[in-house]
Amino acid sequence: MRTETIALRGRAEVKLTAYLLDASPELSNAALRPAVLVFPGGGYRGLSDREAEPVAMAYLAEGFQAFVLRYSVRTEFPEPLLDAEEALDVIRMRSAGWGVDPERIAAIGFSAGGHLAAALGTMGRVRPNALLLGYPCILSSMSEVLAVPIPSVHREIDERTPPAFLFAACDDTAAPVENTISFMRALDEKGIPFEAHIFQSGGHGLSLAKTHTSGGYRSNVNPRFAEWFALSVSWLREVLGDFSSDEDNSVPQARDAGRYGIDVAIGGMLARQECREAILELFPQLSDKKLAARASSYSLSIVNEALPVPHPDDRMRELDGKLRQIALK
Amino acid sequence: MRTETIALRGRAEVKLTAYLLDASPELSNAALRPAVLVFPGGGYRGLSDREAEPVAMAYLAEGFQAFVLRYSVRTEFPEPLLDAEEALDVIRMRSAGWGVDPERIAAIGFSAGGHLAAALGTMGRVRPNALLLGYPCILSSMSEVLAVPIPSVHREIDERTPPAFLFAACDDTAAPVENTISFMRALDEKGIPFEAHIFQSGGHGLSLAKTHTSGGYRSNVNPRFAEWFALSVSWLREVLGDFSSDEDNSVPQARDAGRYGIDVAIGGMLARQECREAILELFPQLSDKKLAARASSYSLSIVNEALPVPHPDDRMRELDGKLRQIALK
Amino acid sequence: MRTETIALRGRAEVKLTAYLLDASPELSNAALRPAVLVFPGGGYRGLSDREAEPVAMAYLAEGFQAFVLRYSVRTEFPEPLLDAEEALDVIRMRSAGWGVDPERIAAIGFSAGGHLAAALGTMGRVRPNALLLGYPCILSSMSEVLAVPIPSVHREIDERTPPAFLFAACDDTAAPVENTISFMRALDEKGIPFEAHIFQSGGHGLSLAKTHTSGGYRSNVNPRFAEWFALSVSWLREVLGDFSSDEDNSVPQARDAGRYGIDVAIGGMLARQECREAILELFPQLSDKKLAARASSYSLSIVNEALPVPHPDDRMRELDGKLRQIALK
Amino acid sequence: MRTETIALRGRAEVKLTAYLLDASPELSNAALRPAVLVFPGGGYRGLSDREAEPVAMAYLAEGFQAFVLRYSVRTEFPEPLLDAEEALDVIRMRSAGWGVDPERIAAIGFSAGGHLAAALGTMGRVRPNALLLGYPCILSSMSEVLAVPIPSVHREIDERTPPAFLFAACDDTAAPVENTISFMRALDEKGIPFEAHIFQSGGHGLSLAKTHTSGGYRSNVNPRFAEWFALSVSWLREVLGDFSSDEDNSVPQARDAGRYGIDVAIGGMLARQECREAILELFPQLSDKKLAARASSYSLSIVNEALPVPHPDDRMRELDGKLRQIALK
Repeated sequence: MRTETIALRGRAEVKLTAYLLDASPELSNAALRPAVLVFPGGGYRGLSDREAEPVAMAYLAEGFQAFVLRYSVRTEFPEPLLDAEEALDVIRMRSAGWGVDPERIAAIGFSAGGHLAAALGTMGRVRPNALLLGYPCILSSMSEVLAVPIPSVHREIDERTPPAFLFAACDDTAAPVENTISFMRALDEKGIPFEAHIFQSGGHGLSLAKTHTSGGYRSNVNPRFAEWFALSVSWLREVLGDFSSDEDNSVPQARDAGRYGIDVAIGGMLARQECREAILELFPQLSDKKLAARASSYSLSIVNEALPVPHPDDRMRELDGKLRQIALK
Repeated sequence: MRTETIALRGRAEVKLTAYLLDASPELSNAALRPAVLVFPGGGYRGLSDREAEPVAMAYLAEGFQAFVLRYSVRTEFPEPLLDAEEALDVIRMRSAGWGVDPERIAAIGFSAGGHLAAALGTMGRVRPNALLLGYPCILSSMSEVLAVPIPSVHREIDERTPPAFLFAACDDTAAPVENTISFMRALDEKGIPFEAHIFQSGGHGLSLAKTHTSGGYRSNVNPRFAEWFALSVSWLREVLGDFSSDEDNSVPQARDAGRYGIDVAIGGMLARQECREAILELFPQLSDKKLAARASSYSLSIVNEALPVPHPDDRMRELDGKLRQIALK
Repeated sequence: MRTETIALRGRAEVKLTAYLLDASPELSNAALRPAVLVFPGGGYRGLSDREAEPVAMAYLAEGFQAFVLRYSVRTEFPEPLLDAEEALDVIRMRSAGWGVDPERIAAIGFSAGGHLAAALGTMGRVRPNALLLGYPCILSSMSEVLAVPIPSVHREIDERTPPAFLFAACDDTAAPVENTISFMRALDEKGIPFEAHIFQSGGHGLSLAKTHTSGGYRSNVNPRFAEWFALSVSWLREVLGDFSSDEDNSVPQARDAGRYGIDVAIGGMLARQECREAILELFPQLSDKKLAARASSYSLSIVNEALPVPHPDDRMRELDGKLRQIALK
Repeated sequence: MRTETIALRGRAEVKLTAYLLDASPELSNAALRPAVLVFPGGGYRGLSDREAEPVAMAYLAEGFQAFVLRYSVRTEFPEPLLDAEEALDVIRMRSAGWGVDPERIAAIGFSAGGHLAAALGTMGRVRPNALLLGYPCILSSMSEVLAVPIPSVHREIDERTPPAFLFAACDDTAAPVENTISFMRALDEKGIPFEAHIFQSGGHGLSLAKTHTSGGYRSNVNPRFAEWFALSVSWLREVLGDFSSDEDNSVPQARDAGRYGIDVAIGGMLARQECREAILELFPQLSDKKLAARASSYSLSIVNEALPVPHPDDRMRELDGKLRQIALK
């Protein structure tokens, strides 16, 4: 795993941090991964650490590559949107090297960051493939309490807007739930698929709503509200697709392979006298009943590799030849 | 978040990788974090990537600092144990700089790595504060299928052995469940607290048992077995303690503070004519009913900071003085 | 547990079935229970068994008393509402005998039954204390596909409308999600607290979305949609209150009680020579170390009751007297 | 749903209570259901209500038929076992009438009831098909604290013993976890599949560990321990089989059916001019675009049934004939 931070738009304060999981031949179904791009909240006047790295970590743990954008604040719209567009461009351009599937990128934003994510998903020159909005600012009427005036983004939804996942609390006084409802309603009118979870209690700014993101405050811990995260992951699996896990790694039985050999299940061969003799010559330890039982669903190749000092290839090929000549019963 | 990899015991192949979450003033309850030290499996002949970084990521996402040890393989015991001891020493020595609580470190191992974790917890010169063993090798009878002979570690349990969490599958043919039962039984006899989850199905080597750790194989995905991870986190919270989240960040009501002022809830003050007049002089926007309702549980200090251009400190102090002189009703 | 079915409004086809959990002195915190009143769906032309008894069972299992109303179908509004009002009246009138808390009754309805529940919560002469609406019909435009014309109930929300929990699927073609959004929006405008879970996929009529309510159809099983039920239970615990579980049944230590006696923890007494002698006279079996350890947090009274043949009361009182006279250390 | 209580073995105090879910044509995959037979605990000196009906309810809610046996107490072994055997006989004999699958019956017991369940599963003349043991008494050494002496049941495990699910707490002082470990170990030695969940904390007698079964005591509520129930349900689905839910109830497209007709999806037909004309003659309301869109994945048969006054069968057959004659495009 490695991290990389790069400045965007030639400005030191606009920073994209990449959190990139290692590739491994053992994880062959994860060579290209879906990704999330996180926009922390902060009223367009700051950027909350509680909604930055911890959120990236939560998705990394589910196998996503993760990115946090520290976008322009206290500068007027569309400056932050231009930052977000460049971030998305960069991720897509570097996707091969970063192990990212360029068409499975979700943008997630919280509060003012939710406004930015929604803007990217509705007005962006380039668009993410899924949108997640946490207690977002949507309406221009929020301009009163933000550092800069903002446009109403629910009016900008178009046919290029990706599927969206919304979560918020009904008792949020900072970004009233009217914001979330307006966006949801506009999505429905335009026929864009969405999912929405509005909890009755929770207020504003809960991030993951767990103890390690609470900053020490009781009101930031909420096990019911915290459900949004697991729901978002299963939603993303549906919308962007899951890691394929369809391969069968069980060793075939001799009857299915149509022959004996070093690559079929040991159990059936040991039960056949002629096979047994050939096998015990090279693997005398399999005369032990308990060990034989344990090895019964493995192949001789696998067992050989597990030995402290494996038999050389030619000995194994020789045994394979013998076994293949024995008629299958 | 940063990663750091250091060689241990003067050997290039023995490597400790640290995954360290950022500190932040917003996360003041996480200045020192609990940590997990991960020992991947691999039969003491290799080290499985599927049980290394993905496991570290899963605990990082729950707020732990995480470490992966790539220990000596194909070398006889106690070489790997010496690696593990040094890893624990290094983490404790550098704990302050790494944001780790030196007495809240858990060791987790899988299969042969589970043997190593158990060895560290029972025979180690230094000991972790909690032990997690996934489908572990415990018994010396496992030596037959491992690259090197191993001692039975359940016999080594002593009063310095920390609480343990075990998980395994009943149908594991590689490391039969007898291993796990023997360790559990010995813990019980010595009076060491433990938790154990033995699933009926699952086999061996499932790691997190999720799609992104499956390597593409169906048999490595198992939603029931995957429960071990959430159970391990709640167990660790009990054994090592949770992030404290007891602070109350609600703004006090004037009646609780015993006076009016810029640091008490706005709602009650606006209802009082004299306060209202003083407030509206500086904050005319609060004459708007909807805005006033939304701000009612905040203080004037908080509202001021949220303004595009906040009022200067002396103006705020002046207002505070006026409010404090008004008799509380 | 007993069931009881009574006809309402003098009509054989309008039936209220009560499912009533037994009272027990061992369940003293559940003498009066919260209740749910279930309105199955069926387009006002029938009543779905899949949304009747299985839903009642699910809440019974969480400690609620449960009721299913088989209301009038193919008869025009407000006939079904009159049925629902009488059902609520009957439950409240008989609440003492039925072990129901009359002010903790939730109404839950599905599809057309959701319309009925919403009507009861907004237009009802009497009102439930919480409202749960599953993929409900809300809008009069639904009249086209229902057996009878219906009024739009979101327009009827008033200050007597209780908190509401809504759930639905975005891809519902039978009762489009516009119904749910309209109700949610009207609740927000009137300031009625609510919770809403709109899943992206699920269609219509899923009931509990589990295998035993699927009727054999794959499309009726949906683990994500099935989350609505657990979310509804934790919401009801918040809105209606939970079973109180505040009592401490641990046996006090002698130091906390300020004296020795037969009702304090045994462990501390056995460690004091004078107490030990008095105790062993009556309970010689406590000289066994293992048994003593096991009994250490219990009192002598509890241990006595657990004996095959308990000592008589006067012997125990005598022992209590002796112990009370020994000075506390 | 109905309940029925019958006396067993000619003794009024030995009572089997049946909780039987209703059959319904809508629940055709649940004509025969799996069942659970519950043995409450109580030290063989009483029977705990907290481990009786609430446990039955929890399984009923998951679609099982449920039974509670109030067995003989304060009478020596094997009296309670004879009760349990007769209970199982009765359930199997009456299985058809009670909607029970006679070979999918699990016995679950708590504490002393766990001893009885284990006895039934190991020594019973007749056997259940699965065994669930909650903080069970297993060892004859428990006789000291029980009302009657008991045999050690882990020694009785044989090849007719069914798969078992065990749960307990490590800190149980009443029935030490050694009981559970002994049974688990013996199952492993005999090759009987099992699952075991031993929680570090929980003590004894928690039943479902939820507020409604707490009897008001804090120590009886434990969200981690409460996980045993969901784990037991998914285990039972694996061991006894789940309700089949393989049927596809989606309406076929005309192209899949190879023709038009009243039982294929409407959408494709409305797009074809000749079909459209035939359809609108009988269903003029489908000229409305929004209504047509909503009905597009349904068939005309389904839409007809949903009408307030459906068209008679002969009109529908006539339309079907017309549609079938139009050549498929």
